[in-house]
Amino acid sequence: MPTPDEMTETVRRYAAAHSAGDVDAVAALFADDAVLLDPVDAPAHHGQDAVRAFFAGTHEMLDSMELLVTGPVRAVGEWAAVPLQARSHMGDSVMEVDIIDVFTFNDDGRISEMRAYWSSADIRVVS
Amino acid sequence: MPTPDEMTETVRRYAAAHSAGDVDAVAALFADDAVLLDPVDAPAHHGQDAVRAFFAGTHEMLDSMELLVTGPVRAVGEWAAVPLQARSHMGDSVMEVDIIDVFTFNDDGRISEMRAYWSSADIRVVS
Repeated sequence: MPTPDEMTETVRRYAAAHSAGDVDAVAALFADDAVLLDPVDAPAHHGQDAVRAFFAGTHEMLDSMELLVTGPVRAVGEWAAVPLQARSHMGDSVMEVDIIDVFTFNDDGRISEMRAYWSSADIRVVS
Repeated sequence: MPTPDEMTETVRRYAAAHSAGDVDAVAALFADDAVLLDPVDAPAHHGQDAVRAFFAGTHEMLDSMELLVTGPVRAVGEWAAVPLQARSHMGDSVMEVDIIDVFTFNDDGRISEMRAYWSSADIRVVS
């Protein structure tokens, strides 16, 4: 089992890899049989390849995206929960959305499940 | 199903009832068959009576507790996730702990499950 510090570090790498637009680095944090629910009420993506494809599509849709950790990572047991803010650029627009991600880890310290709590209704166009 | 606004309002009532030390008001937000995991890696409490008894014990242990909502409530589908900070007073000490709570709601708008992401390792003695 990963330690709380290891889970926290993986969460920070997840955010940094998104901000760098490095979809391969994002996907590498997930287990081969990972399940992704982003947002949590959308159909699940099953497996690392599906996770990679989903995030590749997200990044292709946007000119750029920063994923900012906006509060402490709460690491406990096999879980880590964290508040985030995604700031996306599309053409002349900047959009913000507040997210809480809950990660479940496997014994190897990779992400076996991620649930993203946010709604399209919460997307704010800030410029 | 409750609306996102209704779930957000229930989350705010949950925090306010804790801050008021009103365990009955806290428990009343939960369904009769609710499941509470607080923290998420602890044994589950099953049913509204068990939820009430657990929180009554928490409040009896402390001289007072404020439960502060520290960021936006993310309401989506049947869920609401929120960052919180508990500030507890015990004798001359003030303790802080950062929490993320994830609530699941039933069709009546009551809480059917709550998972609290925090660890005793994160408790800070601030004075």
